[in-house]
Amino acid sequence: MSPDTETGARQIPAAQAALFAGARPHMQRLAGRTIVVKHGGSTMARGGRLWEELLVLQGMGVRPIVVHGGGPEITAMLNDLQVPVQFVDGLRVTDAAVLDVATMILGAKINKRLVAELNANGGKAIGLTGIDGNLLVVEKAKHAQDLGFVGDVVGVNVALLNQLTAAGYIPVIAPLGIDTAGQTYNVNADSAAAAVAGALQAAVLALVTDVPGLYRQEADGQKTVIPRITPAGIDDLIAQGQIKGGMVPKVKGCLAAMTQGVERIQILDGGQPYPLLQALLTDDGCGTTVVNEVSDAR
Amino acid sequence: MSPDTETGARQIPAAQAALFAGARPHMQRLAGRTIVVKHGGSTMARGGRLWEELLVLQGMGVRPIVVHGGGPEITAMLNDLQVPVQFVDGLRVTDAAVLDVATMILGAKINKRLVAELNANGGKAIGLTGIDGNLLVVEKAKHAQDLGFVGDVVGVNVALLNQLTAAGYIPVIAPLGIDTAGQTYNVNADSAAAAVAGALQAAVLALVTDVPGLYRQEADGQKTVIPRITPAGIDDLIAQGQIKGGMVPKVKGCLAAMTQGVERIQILDGGQPYPLLQALLTDDGCGTTVVNEVSDAR
Amino acid sequence: MSPDTETGARQIPAAQAALFAGARPHMQRLAGRTIVVKHGGSTMARGGRLWEELLVLQGMGVRPIVVHGGGPEITAMLNDLQVPVQFVDGLRVTDAAVLDVATMILGAKINKRLVAELNANGGKAIGLTGIDGNLLVVEKAKHAQDLGFVGDVVGVNVALLNQLTAAGYIPVIAPLGIDTAGQTYNVNADSAAAAVAGALQAAVLALVTDVPGLYRQEADGQKTVIPRITPAGIDDLIAQGQIKGGMVPKVKGCLAAMTQGVERIQILDGGQPYPLLQALLTDDGCGTTVVNEVSDAR
Amino acid sequence: MSPDTETGARQIPAAQAALFAGARPHMQRLAGRTIVVKHGGSTMARGGRLWEELLVLQGMGVRPIVVHGGGPEITAMLNDLQVPVQFVDGLRVTDAAVLDVATMILGAKINKRLVAELNANGGKAIGLTGIDGNLLVVEKAKHAQDLGFVGDVVGVNVALLNQLTAAGYIPVIAPLGIDTAGQTYNVNADSAAAAVAGALQAAVLALVTDVPGLYRQEADGQKTVIPRITPAGIDDLIAQGQIKGGMVPKVKGCLAAMTQGVERIQILDGGQPYPLLQALLTDDGCGTTVVNEVSDAR
Amino acid sequence: MSPDTETGARQIPAAQAALFAGARPHMQRLAGRTIVVKHGGSTMARGGRLWEELLVLQGMGVRPIVVHGGGPEITAMLNDLQVPVQFVDGLRVTDAAVLDVATMILGAKINKRLVAELNANGGKAIGLTGIDGNLLVVEKAKHAQDLGFVGDVVGVNVALLNQLTAAGYIPVIAPLGIDTAGQTYNVNADSAAAAVAGALQAAVLALVTDVPGLYRQEADGQKTVIPRITPAGIDDLIAQGQIKGGMVPKVKGCLAAMTQGVERIQILDGGQPYPLLQALLTDDGCGTTVVNEVSDAR
Amino acid sequence: MSPDTETGARQIPAAQAALFAGARPHMQRLAGRTIVVKHGGSTMARGGRLWEELLVLQGMGVRPIVVHGGGPEITAMLNDLQVPVQFVDGLRVTDAAVLDVATMILGAKINKRLVAELNANGGKAIGLTGIDGNLLVVEKAKHAQDLGFVGDVVGVNVALLNQLTAAGYIPVIAPLGIDTAGQTYNVNADSAAAAVAGALQAAVLALVTDVPGLYRQEADGQKTVIPRITPAGIDDLIAQGQIKGGMVPKVKGCLAAMTQGVERIQILDGGQPYPLLQALLTDDGCGTTVVNEVSDAR
Repeated sequence: MSPDTETGARQIPAAQAALFAGARPHMQRLAGRTIVVKHGGSTMARGGRLWEELLVLQGMGVRPIVVHGGGPEITAMLNDLQVPVQFVDGLRVTDAAVLDVATMILGAKINKRLVAELNANGGKAIGLTGIDGNLLVVEKAKHAQDLGFVGDVVGVNVALLNQLTAAGYIPVIAPLGIDTAGQTYNVNADSAAAAVAGALQAAVLALVTDVPGLYRQEADGQKTVIPRITPAGIDDLIAQGQIKGGMVPKVKGCLAAMTQGVERIQILDGGQPYPLLQALLTDDGCGTTVVNEVSDAR
Repeated sequence: MSPDTETGARQIPAAQAALFAGARPHMQRLAGRTIVVKHGGSTMARGGRLWEELLVLQGMGVRPIVVHGGGPEITAMLNDLQVPVQFVDGLRVTDAAVLDVATMILGAKINKRLVAELNANGGKAIGLTGIDGNLLVVEKAKHAQDLGFVGDVVGVNVALLNQLTAAGYIPVIAPLGIDTAGQTYNVNADSAAAAVAGALQAAVLALVTDVPGLYRQEADGQKTVIPRITPAGIDDLIAQGQIKGGMVPKVKGCLAAMTQGVERIQILDGGQPYPLLQALLTDDGCGTTVVNEVSDAR
Repeated sequence: MSPDTETGARQIPAAQAALFAGARPHMQRLAGRTIVVKHGGSTMARGGRLWEELLVLQGMGVRPIVVHGGGPEITAMLNDLQVPVQFVDGLRVTDAAVLDVATMILGAKINKRLVAELNANGGKAIGLTGIDGNLLVVEKAKHAQDLGFVGDVVGVNVALLNQLTAAGYIPVIAPLGIDTAGQTYNVNADSAAAAVAGALQAAVLALVTDVPGLYRQEADGQKTVIPRITPAGIDDLIAQGQIKGGMVPKVKGCLAAMTQGVERIQILDGGQPYPLLQALLTDDGCGTTVVNEVSDAR
Repeated sequence: MSPDTETGARQIPAAQAALFAGARPHMQRLAGRTIVVKHGGSTMARGGRLWEELLVLQGMGVRPIVVHGGGPEITAMLNDLQVPVQFVDGLRVTDAAVLDVATMILGAKINKRLVAELNANGGKAIGLTGIDGNLLVVEKAKHAQDLGFVGDVVGVNVALLNQLTAAGYIPVIAPLGIDTAGQTYNVNADSAAAAVAGALQAAVLALVTDVPGLYRQEADGQKTVIPRITPAGIDDLIAQGQIKGGMVPKVKGCLAAMTQGVERIQILDGGQPYPLLQALLTDDGCGTTVVNEVSDAR
Repeated sequence: MSPDTETGARQIPAAQAALFAGARPHMQRLAGRTIVVKHGGSTMARGGRLWEELLVLQGMGVRPIVVHGGGPEITAMLNDLQVPVQFVDGLRVTDAAVLDVATMILGAKINKRLVAELNANGGKAIGLTGIDGNLLVVEKAKHAQDLGFVGDVVGVNVALLNQLTAAGYIPVIAPLGIDTAGQTYNVNADSAAAAVAGALQAAVLALVTDVPGLYRQEADGQKTVIPRITPAGIDDLIAQGQIKGGMVPKVKGCLAAMTQGVERIQILDGGQPYPLLQALLTDDGCGTTVVNEVSDAR
Repeated sequence: MSPDTETGARQIPAAQAALFAGARPHMQRLAGRTIVVKHGGSTMARGGRLWEELLVLQGMGVRPIVVHGGGPEITAMLNDLQVPVQFVDGLRVTDAAVLDVATMILGAKINKRLVAELNANGGKAIGLTGIDGNLLVVEKAKHAQDLGFVGDVVGVNVALLNQLTAAGYIPVIAPLGIDTAGQTYNVNADSAAAAVAGALQAAVLALVTDVPGLYRQEADGQKTVIPRITPAGIDDLIAQGQIKGGMVPKVKGCLAAMTQGVERIQILDGGQPYPLLQALLTDDGCGTTVVNEVSDAR
C-alpha cells in the first residue's frame, strides 16, 4: 500500500470503487459466458496487454478463448529460409514447405509465447492447434486457383473446449486444421475464430485489429468510425462499396457466426490501451459493435 | 452508449479499462474465497450500496456472506410497543418480549429488506437466521448479571453455508441462535460475524462501521487512522488504553477469528462510497486492515 | 426399555409391529415424494404436533415442505401498534405499515418458532420467505378494490426447494413474495401452498384446518363429512351452494394444483391427534380426500 | 377405505397415528444405517413375514441385507438323492456331492424364493452367493477332523454391498464362499452374517432363531429370557456354563462382529409376529439385545 | 520369461506383436460396447475357454454379458430325482417340480461354476437369474398345449445391467424369469439372450452352439457354412426350407433383436478354439455372421 | 473378409485367437495404468508404427502418454538458418535463437506430425509442450559451463495429464518447459519422460531407442543384450564401466523414476517391428527390462 495523505490520495480508491460498481451490469451480462478473441499474436506496440485483459475477464467469470494469427512472422521465416511467398486474393498459397513453416510459427513460436505470458502471470493457458484433439476439422478450401494446403473449418471439437474452459484453462488456438484423412492445413485466423465462436455460441467474438473499427465515409469524404451497427447495416455498407476487397469475406464470416448464435462482434483497435476491457466493461465501449438490434441496451 | 466525439469521451473508457487491469492482482487473490461482511443493516446515508458491492465481488468469483445487525430498529419497536429497554455493559438485556421483537426486526424486517435489494438487482440472496438449519448453535452467555436470552456462538453449520455459496447464493444472516434444547437467543452481530468467518476460514472479515477505522492518538492529541496493523499491534493499543470500553471485546472477537484462519480483518467506514470495493480491489485500500504481517504485500 | 412381564406387556410390541407392517403400502406410495403441508402456524390446542408428524414422514422417505399462515397474530400485533385493520372479501388490505408487520410475524415470529421446534427434535428445518432466493415471484393481485401489497404467485423457485429437500432439509415457508422490481408482498397462505405444491407436482397437498373436512348437508339438514370426492364432485357442491363464500376461491386454488399434477388434496382437522399421519399412513384416513378417481385404491 | 361411522372406527387411525409418532426416535436412530438379518430361509410357521418387515424398514431409510441358511432343505435333498449326511460338532461334512447340493439349495432354491417374495411386493432384491463378485472370500476351515469344503470368511466385498444398497437393492446372500484359487465352499450362515455385519460396521446384526432369546437359569431352576446384556455379561454366562455347546461359537462370532463396530445384536424368536419390527421400532423390544452398555438408552 | 536366443525365439514376439496390431480396427469398433454371449454353460470339450475369452474382450473395453443354458444337466437331475421329463415342440413342460430343479441347476450349479471360473482368474463376475432385481420380467408363454411355468420375456432391467457392467462386473445370467405377481418361470436361454441383447442394443449377440454356423445346401447336396448373411437372406433360407424345425423360432428371435438395434449376430461353433475371439478380433472371422448389409466392412 | 477355404485359411483365426488369449495376463496387469513412452519423433525406418502401437494399448485400457525428442531435426533447421550448433557433454547449448528453433521443431513440426498420425487413425491425441498448462515447471540446469536455456524439470501438472487420459486423450508432449517467471526452456527428452513417468507413478517407462537394449560385454569381448536387470545390477554395470559417458545420466534419470514408483523401465529397439507391443504383451518381451526384482513374474 503506497503512502498517502488522508485528504488526497484516498480520493482515488473511491473513484476506482465507483468504476467497479459501474461495470456490474456488464459483468452480470458476461458471467459464465464464453468469448472468443482473435488476436494477431504479436505484443502490440502501443496498447493493452492481451494476457492482462484475459485474466481480468476470466476473474469476472468469463471463459476466454484466444485464436491467434501470425502472417508477418510466417513471411519473415519463409524469407529467412528462402522459400518463395505467394498470395492469391489475400490468401497464402501453401505448399508443403510453407505448411511446415506455418505450422512451426503458428503452432509453436507465437502460440507458446502467448501461453507463457499468461502462465507467467498466474493464468492457466493451454496452447492447441486445430490438429490437437481434432479441434478444427477442415476440408480443402475451394478456390478458382489451387491454394494448396489451405482449409475451411467444417467441424469444431466443442466438448474439448468446454471441458478445458470449465476447468479454468484458457485455450490458445493456432489456426491449423486437420482433415479426416489426417492431412494438416493452414486456416485463415479470422475464419477459425468465427468458426469457434459460432460452434460455441459465444457471447462475443472480438477481433483485435489494426484499425479503429468499421468506417463510414461521409459525403464530404470524412471517415468516421461506426460505433454500433446491425448485420443488415453491414450488408448495406457492402452494397455501397464502403466495405470492399479482403474485408468482405472477413466480415461475412463474422456475420455467419452471428447466425449460429454469437450475440455480438467487437471490432477493436489493438493499438488502444486494453481494448477488450474497454469494449466489454465500459458503458462507452470501443471500436465497432455488431449487434442484431442497434437499440440493444449494452 | 452515450454519444461522444472521437477525441474526448473515448479517453474515459481507456482510463476505466486501465483501472480494471490494475485490480487484477486483488481479484486473483480473492477468487473462489469466502468473505464475511458485518453490516448494520440500514441503507447508509452517504456511502456505497451494499448490494451493489456484493454483486460486483460475487461477479469476480468471491463468495460473500452478510451478517447484519439492527439495534436501533429493535429499540424503536420496543418503544412503540412500550416494552422497557435495558442495557448492561453495552449488551441488551433480552427477556421473552425483547427476544420476540429482536426476532422480528432482525429475522424479517431488516433481513428481508437486504435480501429484496439483492434479488431485485439480479442477485440470488437467501435470508437466514442462526435458527435455520441450526446455522448458529449457541449457549447462554455467561455474564455477571443475567442478560436473559443472549447467546454465545459455539457452532456454525459450515456445510449449509458452503452448499449455498457454491450454488451462487449470497446468505444474509440475522444474528439469532438456537441452543441444543431448541431455545432461541439474541446474538451480538459482531460476534456472530466473527464466528462465521472463523468457522469458514474466510479470506476476509469486513466490519462496515460508522468510524473511519482504528485510531492512534498521537502525543499532541491528534488522532490518525491506522491503515495497517497486526494482532500484536492491537494488543499494544489495548494495553495503552487507546482501544477501550465496548471496543475491546469486539476487537478481541475479530482476533480470535484470525487465529482460526481468517486472513485479514477490514474495519471500514460505512459512510465512504463503496467501502468494500475500495478495501478489497484498490492498491490504497480503505480504513484499517488487520493482518498477521504488516509487511504483507497487498 | 420399560420393565415388563413376559406375558403382559410383550403383547404391545407385537401389536405395534403389526401396525407398521400395515402401513407399508402407504409408505411405498409416498416414498421419495414431496408433500406440501399448509398449517396455521400455531401449536394446535387439542391435536397432533406438527414437527413430530413431519419427522415421522421424513423418516419414511417423504420430502415435506411446510407453508404456514398467521393471520390472528398479525391482527394482534397491528392492534398492539394501533394500526387499523381492514379486510375486503376476506383479504387483508395491506399498506406499507401492515406489510411490515406481516413480514415480521410471518417471516420471523411464527416461522422461527416452527423451525426451532423441528430443529430441537433432531430435524433439519430452514425457514424461508418467498422473498428469499426469489422463492415466490408474485404480481400485484387484481381485485375490484385496491388491496395494496397483496400478491398472486406467478413463479416458484423449484430448484431451490428440490436442492434443500434432497439435502434432507425441511423448508418452512412464510407466505411473502417478491415481484421482479424487488417490491415485497403479502400472499394468501392457502394460495402459496397450492402454488408450491403445483409447481413441485407434489404427491399430496395437505391443508390442516379448523374444520373436520368438507361437509355435505343432507335433506334433513344434517351435515356429514365427505371422506372422498373428485374435483367434479366439488364443482357440483359449489353449483349446489354447499361450498360458498371464502371457501370457493380456496377450494379452486387446490383444484388448480391438481391440474398441475398434485395427486391428492387432504383437508384435515388440526384438532385431531396427528392428523397428517392418520391421513397418510392409515387405511381409514382422516378428513376429506380429493382425488381424481373416488374408486382409487388408497 | 372401509366404511365407518364418525364415532367408532375413526378412533383407530388416531391410535395408529400415535404409534407411528412413538416410533420416531427409533427411526431416527436407524436412518441411513445398514442392518444384517440372519434368517433361516423358510417361511416361518407362526410369525412375521420377512419380506414385509424388510420393506417397512427399508421404507424408513434402513439398508437391510439378508443372509439366509437352509440346512433342513439341504438334508432333505441329500436324502432324496441318497447322498449320506454327516455332521461333526454341528458342522456339515461337505464333500463335492454335498457341496453341489448345498450350492443348489442355498444359491437357488431358497435364495430365489426369498428374492421373488420381496420383488413380488414392490421390493428390489438381488440374490447373491458369496461366490458372486467374490463377495465372501474364504479359507478352508481349520478343524480337528477334515470337514471338506467348509470355509471361514476372510474377506467381504464391502464396495459391492454398499453400491447395491445405495441403489435401493436388498442383497439376499446365500452362505457360499470362494477362495483365491476359485474353489467354492459351504459357509455357516451365522458366521457369514456376522462377517458381513462386521465388515460393514452394521448398526444391527439380527439373528432370527427358533428360541425366544438368551436364557438365564435361576437358582430355583426357572429360566427367564434376558432382555439386555453386554458382551462381558455373555462371557460370564459362558463361564457359568449357562451358554454351552454349539451356542458358544455362534455367540462368539457375534461378539467378534461387535468388536468390528456392530452396535447391537438382536437375538429374536422367528415364531413371533414381526420380530424385527418389534425389536427395532418399539420401546419394549423383543428377545435379547446385546449392547456395549446395558444402560444405553434404546 | 522363457530363455531364448537372440536369433530364434525373438522372432515370435515380433510376429505376435504384428497380430495385435492387426486386431486394432476390430478393437476400435467394439470398444465401450456391450456384447451378449449365449453359452451352453458346460466346459466345451475341444474348444476355447469361455472365461478366458470374456476377460480378453473385457480387457479391450468390451462389456460382456453371458446368458447360459443347461438343459442336459436339468434332465440329468430330473432323472436322478425320478421326475418325469416331457417336451412339446422342443420346449420343456415345466411343472412345479421341474421348475424347482431348473432353478437349482440354472440358478446355482451352472451359474456359480461359470462365475467361479471367471473370478478365479481375476474377473469380476456376478451371477444373476432373471428373478434378481426383476431382471427378466416374463409372461406365461402362449402355446397350443399348456407348458406350465415357461415364460416369455416382456421386460429387461437395463439399468441394473448397465450399472454392473459400468462398474466392471460381468453379469452371468441364468434364464429364469419372474412375473408381476412374483411367480417364477423357466425361460428358453436363446430367447433370454436375444431379449437382453435387444433391450441393451448390444453391438453383438453371439450364440455359441454345437454347429459350425448356418448351412446352405447346394444343388449337389453338399452343405457349406454361410460366412455372412442378411436378415433378408435368412428369410429366404426359411422360405426355401433350408432352415426348419426348432431352428426357425430361434433364428427369428435373433432377427427380432436386430430390429431393436443389435448390430450383428454371430453363430459360432463352441468346439472351435476361442470362437468368440476368432469371430470378433480377426479379419477372417468364424461361423456365420448376420448383418444388415453383407458388404459391411468388418 | 478375405475369401478362404474351410480347411486352410480358417486355421489363421484360430491361431490369432490363441495369441490374444495368451496376452490376457499382460493385459490384466496393465489395465487402467499409465505408461510413458519416450520416442524419437521420427517415423522409424524398419520398425513398428508408434500410433498403431499406442492405439492397440489404449484399446486394452492402458493410458499412454508420449514424450518425444527431435534433436536431428533441430540441428537440420539450425543449419538451414545458419545458426551455429554447439554441444557440451552431449547437451545442446541453447541461446535465444536456438530456443526459438527448438520450440518450433519440437512444439510444432514433430509434435503435430505425431498427433495428426494418431488422429487420422481414430485416436484422440493432444499435443502439448511443457509450457502449456505449466505442464513441466523447470529450473535452469546447473552445469559447469552455462548451457543457456536448458532446464531441469522440478514439477509436473499431474492433474492435467490425468484429466486428459481419463477423457481418452493421448497426450503427446514436446520437451519444453517454463520457469516460474515465465521463461521457456529446452529440456532433455529422456529426462522429461522420466520426470513425467515418476510424477504419475506410471506402470512403465518405455524408451524407444536405436539400440537393442543394455549390453553386457563378456570376457571374450562379445556383447549380449541383458533381457532383465535390477537397479542394483545397473549400478554394478556403471561401476564396471560397462555403462559410461552420456548413457550414465540417462540411465540414472530412469532409476530415479523407479524410486518415485515407476514399476519397470523398458529399453527398446525402435528398429524392431512393434517394439512396444512385443515388450508389453508377449511372454518373451523385447530389449531390456529394468525391474526391482529380476525374478518378478512378467
